[in-house]
Amino acid sequence: MIGRLNHVAIAVPDLKAAAAQYENSLGAKVGPPQDEPDHGVTVVFIELPNTKIELLYPLGEDSPIKGFLEKNPSGGIHHMCFEVDDILAARDKLKSEGARVLGNGEPKIGAHGKPVLFLHPKDFNGCLIELEQV
Amino acid sequence: MIGRLNHVAIAVPDLKAAAAQYENSLGAKVGPPQDEPDHGVTVVFIELPNTKIELLYPLGEDSPIKGFLEKNPSGGIHHMCFEVDDILAARDKLKSEGARVLGNGEPKIGAHGKPVLFLHPKDFNGCLIELEQV
Repeated sequence: MIGRLNHVAIAVPDLKAAAAQYENSLGAKVGPPQDEPDHGVTVVFIELPNTKIELLYPLGEDSPIKGFLEKNPSGGIHHMCFEVDDILAARDKLKSEGARVLGNGEPKIGAHGKPVLFLHPKDFNGCLIELEQV
Repeated sequence: MIGRLNHVAIAVPDLKAAAAQYENSLGAKVGPPQDEPDHGVTVVFIELPNTKIELLYPLGEDSPIKGFLEKNPSGGIHHMCFEVDDILAARDKLKSEGARVLGNGEPKIGAHGKPVLFLHPKDFNGCLIELEQV
């Protein structure tokens, strides 16, 4: 069911410093910051040869990563995103096996303009998993 | 400097259950458990089309992931591994910029038989980063 690892998302306390570190110290290809008001984050995409890293910084008062950064002031790996062909079929299979889907269980349009869902970390070894239909 | 994302490593409290979940619920290609006594872990490799997930479970009393699982009993994303061409050049550049390398600072032979180093999470947005020379 799951295909490529689309990205690993890292919540960071200082987006400019983190982007500069990936660009200059780690020598990666780093894009410009992009505000995603619908998702409450500003994102910097880092292109690796086989996948992406996404740096996330809170945008607005209701940012979904605000609490994460309060608990992890240095930042940390926030979630990983697997690609799926059919997000509704994936959701229904996982739900039928007892896994919990976050929110109202309906896919939303994610930061890449494609349908996404998040799975409950407690049901997946403490890892927040995003599924993205590609 | 950094190349491909070689793998994302997930520490899990129940290796058999986690491997079965990735194989059956998530439909991924999951290998057999492999004991790595030199690294204090039993590993299950999950092959995705573009990278790997490594499930880690403690092996022996001095396992480096024992403390992580005590703090995160459900498990969690433990580290991510970036490939580099020249691990000593990468280390020396990062050290000269103030980043800390874990252990004695010398590469060890990692679970894939290649030289690896770990970078201090506090210097990299709370993320434990492994560098592997390929």
